[in-house]
Amino acid sequence: MDIQRIIDAITAEMTAAQHRGKAADYIPALARVDPAQFGIAVVMADGRVFTAGDARTCFSIQSISKVFALSMALGKVGADLWTRVGREPSGSAFNSVVQLEHEGGIPRNPFINAGAIVVSDVVLGGGEPRETIGDILRFLRYLADDDEVQIDQEVASSEAETGFRNIALANYMKSFGNMHNVESALKVYFHQCALSMTCLQLAMAGRYLVHDGKHPGTGRQVVTAIRARRINALMLTCGHYDGSGEFAFRVGIPGKSGVGGGIIAIVPGEASIAVWSPGLNDRGNSLLGSLALERLSEATGWSVFNPPGAR
Amino acid sequence: MDIQRIIDAITAEMTAAQHRGKAADYIPALARVDPAQFGIAVVMADGRVFTAGDARTCFSIQSISKVFALSMALGKVGADLWTRVGREPSGSAFNSVVQLEHEGGIPRNPFINAGAIVVSDVVLGGGEPRETIGDILRFLRYLADDDEVQIDQEVASSEAETGFRNIALANYMKSFGNMHNVESALKVYFHQCALSMTCLQLAMAGRYLVHDGKHPGTGRQVVTAIRARRINALMLTCGHYDGSGEFAFRVGIPGKSGVGGGIIAIVPGEASIAVWSPGLNDRGNSLLGSLALERLSEATGWSVFNPPGAR
Amino acid sequence: MDIQRIIDAITAEMTAAQHRGKAADYIPALARVDPAQFGIAVVMADGRVFTAGDARTCFSIQSISKVFALSMALGKVGADLWTRVGREPSGSAFNSVVQLEHEGGIPRNPFINAGAIVVSDVVLGGGEPRETIGDILRFLRYLADDDEVQIDQEVASSEAETGFRNIALANYMKSFGNMHNVESALKVYFHQCALSMTCLQLAMAGRYLVHDGKHPGTGRQVVTAIRARRINALMLTCGHYDGSGEFAFRVGIPGKSGVGGGIIAIVPGEASIAVWSPGLNDRGNSLLGSLALERLSEATGWSVFNPPGAR
Amino acid sequence: MDIQRIIDAITAEMTAAQHRGKAADYIPALARVDPAQFGIAVVMADGRVFTAGDARTCFSIQSISKVFALSMALGKVGADLWTRVGREPSGSAFNSVVQLEHEGGIPRNPFINAGAIVVSDVVLGGGEPRETIGDILRFLRYLADDDEVQIDQEVASSEAETGFRNIALANYMKSFGNMHNVESALKVYFHQCALSMTCLQLAMAGRYLVHDGKHPGTGRQVVTAIRARRINALMLTCGHYDGSGEFAFRVGIPGKSGVGGGIIAIVPGEASIAVWSPGLNDRGNSLLGSLALERLSEATGWSVFNPPGAR
Repeated sequence: MDIQRIIDAITAEMTAAQHRGKAADYIPALARVDPAQFGIAVVMADGRVFTAGDARTCFSIQSISKVFALSMALGKVGADLWTRVGREPSGSAFNSVVQLEHEGGIPRNPFINAGAIVVSDVVLGGGEPRETIGDILRFLRYLADDDEVQIDQEVASSEAETGFRNIALANYMKSFGNMHNVESALKVYFHQCALSMTCLQLAMAGRYLVHDGKHPGTGRQVVTAIRARRINALMLTCGHYDGSGEFAFRVGIPGKSGVGGGIIAIVPGEASIAVWSPGLNDRGNSLLGSLALERLSEATGWSVFNPPGAR
Repeated sequence: MDIQRIIDAITAEMTAAQHRGKAADYIPALARVDPAQFGIAVVMADGRVFTAGDARTCFSIQSISKVFALSMALGKVGADLWTRVGREPSGSAFNSVVQLEHEGGIPRNPFINAGAIVVSDVVLGGGEPRETIGDILRFLRYLADDDEVQIDQEVASSEAETGFRNIALANYMKSFGNMHNVESALKVYFHQCALSMTCLQLAMAGRYLVHDGKHPGTGRQVVTAIRARRINALMLTCGHYDGSGEFAFRVGIPGKSGVGGGIIAIVPGEASIAVWSPGLNDRGNSLLGSLALERLSEATGWSVFNPPGAR
Repeated sequence: MDIQRIIDAITAEMTAAQHRGKAADYIPALARVDPAQFGIAVVMADGRVFTAGDARTCFSIQSISKVFALSMALGKVGADLWTRVGREPSGSAFNSVVQLEHEGGIPRNPFINAGAIVVSDVVLGGGEPRETIGDILRFLRYLADDDEVQIDQEVASSEAETGFRNIALANYMKSFGNMHNVESALKVYFHQCALSMTCLQLAMAGRYLVHDGKHPGTGRQVVTAIRARRINALMLTCGHYDGSGEFAFRVGIPGKSGVGGGIIAIVPGEASIAVWSPGLNDRGNSLLGSLALERLSEATGWSVFNPPGAR
Repeated sequence: MDIQRIIDAITAEMTAAQHRGKAADYIPALARVDPAQFGIAVVMADGRVFTAGDARTCFSIQSISKVFALSMALGKVGADLWTRVGREPSGSAFNSVVQLEHEGGIPRNPFINAGAIVVSDVVLGGGEPRETIGDILRFLRYLADDDEVQIDQEVASSEAETGFRNIALANYMKSFGNMHNVESALKVYFHQCALSMTCLQLAMAGRYLVHDGKHPGTGRQVVTAIRARRINALMLTCGHYDGSGEFAFRVGIPGKSGVGGGIIAIVPGEASIAVWSPGLNDRGNSLLGSLALERLSEATGWSVFNPPGAR
């Protein structure tokens, strides 16, 4: 299978696409990103790396960071995490608030904002935000094997200044007793969302989820094999907001999107993939990124719903 | 891999289990089923068949029928179906009504009751309920390769007599213009839920979803390969009511449960599985059936989130 | 106070009004009503009658009938009614379904559709729809002192043919055990909504609510004094769908509107008023009817929130 | 009418009552109030004052302050207020969040917490919390004609420390653009809720709503006559959380309750009444306070739904 040829063709199609969606504009740093960009990186299980388009341009990974924060939280408190956050898909933003009220302040899953804020509270433990943010940054550099990974301070500040809905969610959960330190956890949360990475760095960072939880460079388990599998399951059912079912239906690969236009996608035992294009569809997921992954799945047979022989 | 030994061990565990959940009791025919039963059948991709426990006892397949009705509807109207029903997970029964209102009478997916009633309306087309019910019965007999598959008329009648919530949903969707024939569609729906099958018949009936949509006996496509894959995706994200995320997380195999205590589970390219135990957990899925599939996944490595080599 | 002069001036203003709202069009009989019409009738506590505009034209009283049905139900089962229906305002149609689910099938109040359907079920008792409908018609003729009051059979039939949302609500409540006979109760409900009356007849029919529950013609109590007061309280808090607060705020008189464009309004001890103009505002209440009552309140000082001396 | 005899009898009944409800306990200062207390004060339109029981004991007026803050806000921005807050009843706390989401961050009315926080934001204008809090305190002293009215700093601090749900609501509205200064507005809100007053002071403070908006001591308009009437209308439809309909039904007098156990009630042109008993019913309103007002209404004929002659 000639991956390079496949992603070159995809990149050509995406670069020429007319309808590119609309980039997030709730903070200036996201609004001014050039929507014409598209990048893709594929890191194979055997270590080969393929890139095309703007695969080495940094973008704000935003909600994709929730996958890594979840991995850290599981390492810290294990299955106890699931007493504070659920594992069920959540539907629309509208529903997420209704459900939070209906279900006593327990967010539906760790990939909606409310759930990710609880995860931040867990990762923080009783610690200092500054240190926790440093831990997260070091964790990503380790996973990506790249010390250039940075947090975009402008984005972090903007998130904090405009994040009223997240502040509301955190306080709401606190009223149900499901938050320890609202202010510090939000600080961590806003910084993790501001991680700035390239497609290549992101695909590298996702390798442990391809390899049963093992960092292929160091050979150490980042998470246990069973947890790696379960994080992939969560990505499949909950990774794309209210477009998760659609993504599973069309693409069939566990993935997590962010409003910065990035998507990470994991084919267990095969490849870690990152795509990026700033324009979003009406569910808040990268329009061309989703389409590129659908094309990639068609061309390679990569889908967890394909018989292994068909891949 | 010695499947027989594995399922014998599972059956021994399930037969001895103390906590067996509570059987559905909203109609007499379900309430009087002996909760001590447990059955499992595995039909391998290569045609080998393994059974254990009460694998040849008939039970009411209930919502499992939604998988087969969906397959028929896709054959009838193709992708047009998706203008009338969504593909996103739906959360609790509470949410399903809220969402139906919020989303203008379009049910979230074909596996919640509202969605399945729309599917029945589609399968019915402009036809007669009696004929459509006959078509469904013949379809199941063909899939299972067994003319003994029956519809339990007592169950069908009881469903019709007590199904006020389903009647409400159908009329509600009609008020939004998303139903053609409320009465006939409900008749079809109540009868398809009353299909009475054994684990063995059910596992046989699921074979086309293992084989890229192809009936392995006749070699004919029941659905296209892409649709088979997508039905599996829908089962994974939406197949277990508000326990779908949990099932994906723990078991990682596309499946569909019914309140009769049955579950069908599909490992693409590997096996079609049916389990049955009448007691339900708090999400309305077979308690021991879910646990048995978790055990089976652990023992065999069957999970769409496992690297192919790990299976 | 020269009531005739006041209502003549109001009628002149309403007849000349540009913005008249939009008539209900969900059934043909309502859709073809001439929107240019406006009528008002005031029956004073001392028996004097004032009319202006189209006060003697029949219109479909629709939800106004809920006031009379409630009076009948209270006569039949007394305070037991309140175990099956609440007394709290209900917000939007959206909320009424959410609340019905949230509150276990008990409608918020007898003036939303769900509540009125329960009231119909109560008025029906174990009886025949035909007889109950006859009872309701006789009750209205007695209250209005006019044997010309009729039920519009075309409207009743149209309501039944298009009332899917009401059928849904009834079945939904049945699923919670809060309906005895869905079909018969709906038949009664659709017929009571189809009562056809003039402003004059309606204002006459409302007299008992002005006179502490007593029919001023016969001197007999239609409802007890305390119940008359409480029906008025319910009209004030719940009489205008999601515009009830607004109506209380602007007009300050207990009232009940219908989608036919009519409104009945009761000033305890002072007057029974009926207005009618087919065009509705965005909350489903007669646009000019509401405005006319606001003008009447301003001109007469009639408002339950005005000190008695200020009237 | 011998008001003193009536309220003495009521006080005797309430003092002897077995079921007294449960006092609010979310902050220590409320939790430690002796539940055995009951007080009532009636200030007649002609200036006569009647008190009984613990009418001179201070209690936390909590949400009753919303009536006075609304009066200030209307004086400050007039009808523009209604672009930021609605005038419709709101149902349960559950619904208030659902509705806030459904209606784009516009609270249903100024007497639910979200609405009162918007009102605080309006009263604050661009000012300093400290000054605004001073203004509110001076306003209450002026209305009550009593410089002893205080703000309980312990209560204000506790409210701020535990008010996560209110902080959530404020930030939530901010995310919709319906708050200017979250932190300062909340500071004002928490302090106004901490106003500590006696029944006598509270009944005195309510006099302007009896007198068409005019302070009977100074003869100056606190609010215009039409606004006084409308504030009374809002109290009737929205003054008792999800028990507003019930209170209108049973008592029929505009009123506003607080979780401190106090209720203010206004009979236009007749009397300003304050009752207090710490135990709450299941809707969060004073159990004995509500009952006492029902008794008072029965004994005096005071109800806006009674014909004037019947009072």
